[in-house]
Amino acid sequence: MSSEKIIETPAVLIDLEVAKKNITRFQEHCDQYSIALRPHIKTHKLPSMAKLQIAAGAVGITCQKIGEAEVMADAGILDILITYNILGASKLARLAKLARRCNLSVVADNAVVVKGLSQTFSQEKKSLEILIECDTGAGRCGVQTTDAVVELAKIIYSSKGLTLGGLMTYPPMGKSQQVENWLKKAKDALATNDLPCPKISSGGTPNMWKSQEVPIADEHRSGTYIYNDRSLINTGHCTRNDCALSVRATVVSTPTPDRAIIDAGSKMLTSDLLGMKGFGLIVEAPDAQLVSLSEEHGIINLSESTWQPKVGELIHIIPNHACVVTNMVDHVYLIEGNRIEKTPVLARGRVT
Amino acid sequence: MSSEKIIETPAVLIDLEVAKKNITRFQEHCDQYSIALRPHIKTHKLPSMAKLQIAAGAVGITCQKIGEAEVMADAGILDILITYNILGASKLARLAKLARRCNLSVVADNAVVVKGLSQTFSQEKKSLEILIECDTGAGRCGVQTTDAVVELAKIIYSSKGLTLGGLMTYPPMGKSQQVENWLKKAKDALATNDLPCPKISSGGTPNMWKSQEVPIADEHRSGTYIYNDRSLINTGHCTRNDCALSVRATVVSTPTPDRAIIDAGSKMLTSDLLGMKGFGLIVEAPDAQLVSLSEEHGIINLSESTWQPKVGELIHIIPNHACVVTNMVDHVYLIEGNRIEKTPVLARGRVT
Repeated sequence: MSSEKIIETPAVLIDLEVAKKNITRFQEHCDQYSIALRPHIKTHKLPSMAKLQIAAGAVGITCQKIGEAEVMADAGILDILITYNILGASKLARLAKLARRCNLSVVADNAVVVKGLSQTFSQEKKSLEILIECDTGAGRCGVQTTDAVVELAKIIYSSKGLTLGGLMTYPPMGKSQQVENWLKKAKDALATNDLPCPKISSGGTPNMWKSQEVPIADEHRSGTYIYNDRSLINTGHCTRNDCALSVRATVVSTPTPDRAIIDAGSKMLTSDLLGMKGFGLIVEAPDAQLVSLSEEHGIINLSESTWQPKVGELIHIIPNHACVVTNMVDHVYLIEGNRIEKTPVLARGRVT
Repeated sequence: MSSEKIIETPAVLIDLEVAKKNITRFQEHCDQYSIALRPHIKTHKLPSMAKLQIAAGAVGITCQKIGEAEVMADAGILDILITYNILGASKLARLAKLARRCNLSVVADNAVVVKGLSQTFSQEKKSLEILIECDTGAGRCGVQTTDAVVELAKIIYSSKGLTLGGLMTYPPMGKSQQVENWLKKAKDALATNDLPCPKISSGGTPNMWKSQEVPIADEHRSGTYIYNDRSLINTGHCTRNDCALSVRATVVSTPTPDRAIIDAGSKMLTSDLLGMKGFGLIVEAPDAQLVSLSEEHGIINLSESTWQPKVGELIHIIPNHACVVTNMVDHVYLIEGNRIEKTPVLARGRVT
């Protein structure tokens, strides 16, 4: 049976062949420069995809939440970095339980977080590895200065139940030299203070093809590269044919000659713009503009397009941001040749 | 045990007392003007909330997707309007099955949709009621002219398995007179053509307190009023104290004096701006600005605030748009006095 007949819209489709190509290509890049690849599972949220990434050579995975890591460990993925400041008795108890069954490391950027981790892991047989999160210019989490790195490293190094795993950063895009300098200075300061720095982990998809420009980093974390999306096409980091994820939608109304309405709205595509205009690329009519979304409807402006959609017609949309779309659905459809597999997005909605 | 201890963040909290007040107040308004109230369940996605609305006097509920209606029917809610153009064999089969166990009506704005519905329901014992969706100025779905109303009404009226239920619109906000005129003209034209118009259904939360300004409408559909949100505070339609839904988050990092980072990002609050700046109102520090979100982090700009957040501190955020937030989580916490109930959001993620 054709996929048109058995897939109700809106639906998230994954072209498995393209996803596999994306996995292989970036793994080869990392291998070439001897960079360990630790993919972020936030994009796919699927143990099966994480296993493909590991089979291709990834050293382990990155998760953002304990709940995601629990799902992955349940599936037998046993090398996990959680890039998050973890706080609170309930979460720390879950973290300790998780650490007993996998090779787990986390990050911290402040002493309060380190204190909680130490209180918990001083009771455990195995110590927990902590990487210090560094703000190398992205303006998110992270310690701000080399002095702060050393100060926090001393606390971690002297804390029961913890080992100092090195440094971690989510770098600003396009500023490799700045990131390299920041991390080198911090690593040197750790050495000066007789503190270990066994690993430096950097990341990001937009800068992944330039990961070798931060040679001090041993490891690269990247998520979106497995599927790619409109934001990465737009910034020249991939082409339309590298996009593995699309949203299939049906034209449900054509109220005026210049307006068509589809059954994919913000509950499927999200409102993420990532600096662009419009909410996605319409594969069948790239000149038509997906100008606005309500929760269950997408409104297409046809005024600059020759496309004349019919009610009932199927279209496919490359969303602005792939990672957030997989979080909206309980299932995605994996498509490879004639085979279609409806698979649950097991790590979806794991907010804690 | 206090709710601080047992609720891991980020979490969606519902103040049940406030929600009940909101239900009662708008029901009283509708009763005063003899308007039937048919709440849209998209805001709460909870059968328990729909039952409270019906117990207060609502005539039934509104859903946008068959999947939502199935969940509500499973819970014993048996008067349902689905305000959506339904297309495709699989969905039509589900619709027929659903109609056998509840009092169901749907909308249509074109002949293709009507044809599909008729093909399906001509095989059923009970006919399906169809309301014609009218675009009275909101620029979404809907027929554009009175002539188009009459044309589609004739098709529905003569289609096997269908009955003509009247007119439905999602009106433009603040244009009651325009909506009234549009609908009156359409109703008159139906009468002139000896076509029935048993009901006219209008809707919207921003204009709900002026629902009586469209007296031709027999029914009002409203969703957000049960929880309210920052967008409705911002437009003067409610106050902070009328907001039943908040997102509890933890401060996880304070990297600089003017920046704090919380564990609620776009995976919890969504990127919906609804024309505003910032991603939510921080209850504990309304002068602090939630300026940007990544998936799992919210960045707060403290430069114009006297608040000095500490790592580990709990805060509460009134989101820009309540409806989309309940779609992000598998569970919400209903809070009433000392009682806390973790309840599954049963109609979450029902995209088809």
